[in-house]
Amino acid sequence: MRLASFFISTLKEAPAEAELISHKLMLRAGLIRRLGSGLYTWMPLGLKVLRKVESVVREEMDASGALELLMPAIQPAELWRETGRWDVFGPQMLRIKDRHQRDFCFGPTHEEVITDIARREIRSYRQLPLTFYQIQTKFRDEIRPRFGVMRAREFVMKDAYSFHAGSDSLEKTYAAMHEAYCRIFSRLGVGFRAVTADTGPMGGSGSHEFHVLADSGEDAIAFCPDSEYAANVEMAEALPPAGPRGAAGSVMRKVETVGKKTCEEVAAFLSLPVEQTIKTLAVVANGEVYLLLLRGDHHLNETKVRKIPFLCDFRLANEEEIRAKTGCLPGYIGPAGLTLPVIADRTVAAMNDFVCGANEENYHLVNANFGRDMKEPDHVFDIRNVIPGDPSPDGGGKLDICRGIEVGHIFQLHTKYSEAMKAVYLDESGQSRPMEMGCYGIGVSRIVAAAVEQNHDAGGIIFPEAMAPFQVVIIPIGLKKNTEVRIEAESIYAALCDAGIDVLLDDRDDRPGVMFADMELIGIPHRIVIGERSLKQGIIEYQGRRDEKAQAIPYPSQDIVGFIKSRIRGA
Amino acid sequence: MRLASFFISTLKEAPAEAELISHKLMLRAGLIRRLGSGLYTWMPLGLKVLRKVESVVREEMDASGALELLMPAIQPAELWRETGRWDVFGPQMLRIKDRHQRDFCFGPTHEEVITDIARREIRSYRQLPLTFYQIQTKFRDEIRPRFGVMRAREFVMKDAYSFHAGSDSLEKTYAAMHEAYCRIFSRLGVGFRAVTADTGPMGGSGSHEFHVLADSGEDAIAFCPDSEYAANVEMAEALPPAGPRGAAGSVMRKVETVGKKTCEEVAAFLSLPVEQTIKTLAVVANGEVYLLLLRGDHHLNETKVRKIPFLCDFRLANEEEIRAKTGCLPGYIGPAGLTLPVIADRTVAAMNDFVCGANEENYHLVNANFGRDMKEPDHVFDIRNVIPGDPSPDGGGKLDICRGIEVGHIFQLHTKYSEAMKAVYLDESGQSRPMEMGCYGIGVSRIVAAAVEQNHDAGGIIFPEAMAPFQVVIIPIGLKKNTEVRIEAESIYAALCDAGIDVLLDDRDDRPGVMFADMELIGIPHRIVIGERSLKQGIIEYQGRRDEKAQAIPYPSQDIVGFIKSRIRGA
Repeated sequence: MRLASFFISTLKEAPAEAELISHKLMLRAGLIRRLGSGLYTWMPLGLKVLRKVESVVREEMDASGALELLMPAIQPAELWRETGRWDVFGPQMLRIKDRHQRDFCFGPTHEEVITDIARREIRSYRQLPLTFYQIQTKFRDEIRPRFGVMRAREFVMKDAYSFHAGSDSLEKTYAAMHEAYCRIFSRLGVGFRAVTADTGPMGGSGSHEFHVLADSGEDAIAFCPDSEYAANVEMAEALPPAGPRGAAGSVMRKVETVGKKTCEEVAAFLSLPVEQTIKTLAVVANGEVYLLLLRGDHHLNETKVRKIPFLCDFRLANEEEIRAKTGCLPGYIGPAGLTLPVIADRTVAAMNDFVCGANEENYHLVNANFGRDMKEPDHVFDIRNVIPGDPSPDGGGKLDICRGIEVGHIFQLHTKYSEAMKAVYLDESGQSRPMEMGCYGIGVSRIVAAAVEQNHDAGGIIFPEAMAPFQVVIIPIGLKKNTEVRIEAESIYAALCDAGIDVLLDDRDDRPGVMFADMELIGIPHRIVIGERSLKQGIIEYQGRRDEKAQAIPYPSQDIVGFIKSRIRGA
Repeated sequence: MRLASFFISTLKEAPAEAELISHKLMLRAGLIRRLGSGLYTWMPLGLKVLRKVESVVREEMDASGALELLMPAIQPAELWRETGRWDVFGPQMLRIKDRHQRDFCFGPTHEEVITDIARREIRSYRQLPLTFYQIQTKFRDEIRPRFGVMRAREFVMKDAYSFHAGSDSLEKTYAAMHEAYCRIFSRLGVGFRAVTADTGPMGGSGSHEFHVLADSGEDAIAFCPDSEYAANVEMAEALPPAGPRGAAGSVMRKVETVGKKTCEEVAAFLSLPVEQTIKTLAVVANGEVYLLLLRGDHHLNETKVRKIPFLCDFRLANEEEIRAKTGCLPGYIGPAGLTLPVIADRTVAAMNDFVCGANEENYHLVNANFGRDMKEPDHVFDIRNVIPGDPSPDGGGKLDICRGIEVGHIFQLHTKYSEAMKAVYLDESGQSRPMEMGCYGIGVSRIVAAAVEQNHDAGGIIFPEAMAPFQVVIIPIGLKKNTEVRIEAESIYAALCDAGIDVLLDDRDDRPGVMFADMELIGIPHRIVIGERSLKQGIIEYQGRRDEKAQAIPYPSQDIVGFIKSRIRGA
């Protein structure tokens, strides 16, 4: 492609609303342009990137045996009412009335539609397993769209759905999809991790997320550097401490802690490690107030709490409720002397001689012990987030925490949707059974932002080879003034095109600084510079986007096509 | 592709709601499945067809220099308010409120969005001309969606928009797009015609429609078999009759025509040719009643009438209005003796000794003449549809009428949108000017239906080569029982795959009749049948989808790949 026949539009500064580096760079490089809140146009340069990502996804889905189809974006409400999700999905779902006042939504996902297709089309176990997928524009009406295409309202998603006679078959396809996802992200050249995940509102059991690793990622991932273990922090199990609880020591006493409300403040004030303090949280579920106990430096894991049957719809108690039940302000409450049901985190259950609120304003208890100074906890559960240094649940070493951007999510849905929608098949004995189902999503447009978030420097984007808008750029200096430069630029351009390399000829004849800066910002992996002086010396310049400096290539003595091919392969 | 790894789902009977043959066949062949009114899923087999059409469209758009981008489907109302189309577009536009109660629409077209991009990105004449396009899902909330994907609510469209410094540049790109469209439809193998068209609600001037010719088409096209002339009947000019008006003959008289209201009835009753009668239509515009005069066998062309400035918002008068102004019932009104303004069609203006209503119930006038028996018409305009036999407006012969399905439409919009939205550029002298614009649409999903409508027989679809889901099908008879059949089927399958031919191996091992019927219904252009008996005779069978019968191919002596390639080329 010649730049004069293409369209690029770079910016010196990103618009003020862009916070995230990928958002800034994608705007500055002119990959996307904002139309409205959470709505972006993919400009020709950006669409080239998006299409390359799509192609890799499509190739690997096809190779896995999944069949591509295309379902409507607009879906009738009736199907969502069958599964009950019309009422559950919330305002993220863009609801629409057509001219006849019938209810529709702009599909945020397609479980209902594909299950409707399956129940009409599939009769027998002989037709199973089957996996369908589509690459399609989705809409989710985010309450606060931000970060550009990272969290846009309209976005491109690959969603796949598999149907099975029995869960063995589901597990086999699930594993095949896991592998296909690993191949996709590997081929795209992004650093990623597959992690055990919560199934959330999709339902079912068994789920993995795929994260592109980046410091700015919204999700925390617990992983073990010495083993294969990786899980979303929501899911990572905090094992109980190894040994038994230590014996109670000195007598419990009440100490004045005026104005010290947080565990950190109390620990500092008492010159004790924060690990010896207990944080007490009052929560309300089903009209009852419960006390949750966490070690002072630990954080509550809401996902884990919601899995405790009687706390599934818990919320934090408000000040009024706390005062009514403990007679005290939040910040000074604790488990001693109250009859409220107490749920201790596993770590807390093993603590002795701890510090906790005294249920009296401006006072805490020290040397407190379960059994001796207060009742034993009514329940012990894992209700906290893991922290770095916690033992890995697989016994493989210690956990560390990193951050990631979720770009893929696979689920074993089992019969959640097929039972609700009566998607059944006849098994070998002629019996009607609900199909087992899996679903498998990839945020196609989000991958682009995640890749930029992970791969950039002060000059701009550093696109991985497989998703760069162009593989190579040729920058001739003084194209119009200098015949020799023009001839050699055209000749190298033609040779690279003929070799099937996606090459951009920057024929703007602008100042070299402008052309260099633009191509660096856009993130083209390989750059060839052709100048009058160097040509006279029998060289042209090559620089990889990650190289510190350019290298001289003997020209025309060296085979440029072969050289570029070896650089592309080596990347 | 092996059929066992693919998914096809054919039906013996089409659902009752399908009226059009293409709708019936696309459902029966399992290309599409209905989700709701005007909403269809493209099943894997159908999506293969749709993608092939998309590819041809994309290749030709790219070759024309247009740049692909992707705009959001969801568009903010503000942009549509700038051009005034938010209020004009009517209930076809699916209007949406987001969670913050802001107005949006599911884009039925993208002039506003692309013009917004242009006004932000384009500053100088040096950046022009530029053509952008996208292939995208659109939504139009049709009042009565029908005919499957022919008139669906959600559909796939290619929409392109060009921007220019001056109308010469627009005309050049317009001509290039016209050529690209001709190449697209030629490559897709559909019989089509480019016709001069009305610009309608898109505005601007200069417009062509591209029609796939089919007897069931919704549009009537006037064309001249002896010249290049072709126009939508809405637009085709009816030339004035060649000679001057004949002289008035015998004296006018009033005849009783009890119960004869239509020109056909009156002509038959009086034993006169219907071409000698005049039909008088009373219409209302801007509060005034006008009489429109047409020859008895001609039909009113509303589009032409609306182009007469004082009739642009005309409607037919109701019975009450007619009675008030003529003192007579409709069916017996005429131009004689009234003071209402009279607009005569060009043909009528040249008539003498004609029959018309007497403005008295049950009476007509015969031997009536303008000038002698009534005032001359106040205005003479072309207000009728052309009919077969009319002279071609280009002087090239006589017109004929055929029917077509509109699959493409190109427009010269000029500055309609750029002026409304202030999309300006600086010209060579530094002056700010509104950009000239063109827009160019193709109904990508509709092309598939139109191709089926044009190409089918009793057995089913006959896909043109370029859009067939598979180019070749191999049907082995007794695959599982017969090792030799299996080996040869696999070997031919592998050879065709290796040659880059899109081949389907029907490995279902079903009854031959079932496999033959399915493949015929689906419309695969080339079929190879491998059977035990014929193999023993050293032959396999080949049949083209349009061939009356199969032919024997010596096997393995003949090179099957070469044979198939020659058939594909020859098609």
